[in-house]
Amino acid sequence: MSELRRNTRLAVVGGNRPEKRFLETAYEVGRAVAEAGAVLVCGGLGGVMEAASRGAKEAGGITVGILPGGDPAAANRYIDLPVVTGLGYTRNSLVVMNADAVIAVDGEYGTLSEIAFSLIYGRKVIGIGTWDIPGVVPAPGPREAVEMALKDIKER
Amino acid sequence: MSELRRNTRLAVVGGNRPEKRFLETAYEVGRAVAEAGAVLVCGGLGGVMEAASRGAKEAGGITVGILPGGDPAAANRYIDLPVVTGLGYTRNSLVVMNADAVIAVDGEYGTLSEIAFSLIYGRKVIGIGTWDIPGVVPAPGPREAVEMALKDIKER
Amino acid sequence: MSELRRNTRLAVVGGNRPEKRFLETAYEVGRAVAEAGAVLVCGGLGGVMEAASRGAKEAGGITVGILPGGDPAAANRYIDLPVVTGLGYTRNSLVVMNADAVIAVDGEYGTLSEIAFSLIYGRKVIGIGTWDIPGVVPAPGPREAVEMALKDIKER
Amino acid sequence: MSELRRNTRLAVVGGNRPEKRFLETAYEVGRAVAEAGAVLVCGGLGGVMEAASRGAKEAGGITVGILPGGDPAAANRYIDLPVVTGLGYTRNSLVVMNADAVIAVDGEYGTLSEIAFSLIYGRKVIGIGTWDIPGVVPAPGPREAVEMALKDIKER
Repeated sequence: MSELRRNTRLAVVGGNRPEKRFLETAYEVGRAVAEAGAVLVCGGLGGVMEAASRGAKEAGGITVGILPGGDPAAANRYIDLPVVTGLGYTRNSLVVMNADAVIAVDGEYGTLSEIAFSLIYGRKVIGIGTWDIPGVVPAPGPREAVEMALKDIKER
Repeated sequence: MSELRRNTRLAVVGGNRPEKRFLETAYEVGRAVAEAGAVLVCGGLGGVMEAASRGAKEAGGITVGILPGGDPAAANRYIDLPVVTGLGYTRNSLVVMNADAVIAVDGEYGTLSEIAFSLIYGRKVIGIGTWDIPGVVPAPGPREAVEMALKDIKER
Repeated sequence: MSELRRNTRLAVVGGNRPEKRFLETAYEVGRAVAEAGAVLVCGGLGGVMEAASRGAKEAGGITVGILPGGDPAAANRYIDLPVVTGLGYTRNSLVVMNADAVIAVDGEYGTLSEIAFSLIYGRKVIGIGTWDIPGVVPAPGPREAVEMALKDIKER
Repeated sequence: MSELRRNTRLAVVGGNRPEKRFLETAYEVGRAVAEAGAVLVCGGLGGVMEAASRGAKEAGGITVGILPGGDPAAANRYIDLPVVTGLGYTRNSLVVMNADAVIAVDGEYGTLSEIAFSLIYGRKVIGIGTWDIPGVVPAPGPREAVEMALKDIKER
């Protein structure tokens, strides 16, 4: 099996238009995901998704963007592998289905749907400044969020 | 355009295994939906979905069940029109997309995903004993929930 | 179980812009579906879908349109129950999944995908002036097509 | 933009249980895809999909498998990046949506649905021993198939 295949996959979900501080958080989450050797999965668009993808790429990681539309060019420029679906918002289910654990940063109703699907699918959800839902474990910062997610995956 | 087509469509979402009191609530919601001349849309399975469907049928209404699997026989016995999707939990998005407004009774993570998609799609969500999410308007009882949903649709 | 639920469901698939003679064929197929007491399922849009829906409605039948987009108003005016999916062309799979057998009239690549899914799902496909694919049984006319489809369902 | 992102993506579609000669063809197609520097996209399972993935990996390429189920471990061992969908056969639409052109080798109804979606989405389809459908351009061998697909993409 290829090395890429063996990698853990962590999804980062969050808002399209977050406050600046959450963009910085998402960037740091992305860096930490890549530094841990995990593949970053996200919805492929802007805001938290783009900041996390940029962080992952600047730390030498690999990024997958699962897009709502049919045009791979809609992915932000830090996505290595755009996956088009043509499913619209319904693709939110597929984003988190493709991760071993999920980190949510900020976020509105789209992020809420992704948190809900994560918990339906039995994925651990670590949250920073996001929805306060039973099952979402709050993390004090981006590095800790990635550590907590990886720890949960290892212990399963 | 046919009379059936002109009808308002109300989705009822909620848990598979609710406490008994929520089954009674869901039944009354279903009755009120049918008595208002609206079509009841739901996920087609058990618990709140089945109780609401039974209420709607006993009041002479029409029921649509949008199912996760591919077998229409999986629909509860009060569903007139089972719609199979083969999409698994991802079908939750389609349940609420097919309604003019949504009433949530009790419910766990599946219901949370349906509430999230309702709000993404701009549907009013009326809640009874369900997730306390900004945007979900609590109703004091089943009749009031249906009235509030219909009032919102009329005023749009 | 409701009477509506017990009805056989026949899908009619075909082109958006067929020659006039295929519109007449589709209309007659729709009439025959309704006269046989079956529910007509289709993709809900124009061309063969609309002509078949009109035939079914003029014969007192019930019609279901499984739409690619998210707006039920996109359904042709002869659809009683529009089901929105937001899946784009991917919804072609769901159209035929929701029928006990499929009648194809004329048609281009969309119809070809529906024929393929019908055969994947083990549905009998009866064809009039459509793709010549092994597994598609040609019918001499609209009435015969419906009879052949119903006969296959009964004998299963 | 990352180098991986800039790569052309070619889908290879075909049967689960082809004759041995088609497995060899698919293997050679996979090798040629990788040697041309393109990413191989497929349905991620056995038969033609597995043979093509093996060819691509043995030539140092990258492989993406878009799976019908929700378990990435279902992907064949030559897939670098399994993408789970939980959509069942409906995922066939997403396989070809994620490629710039499509090569079909052998194949049954699943492959027919993938050819149909390719043509719906305006993707060139090159065929070897597959469905004889207008729009599918036959290739004399695996190397030529990849060359023809790449030539079409370049000339667009």
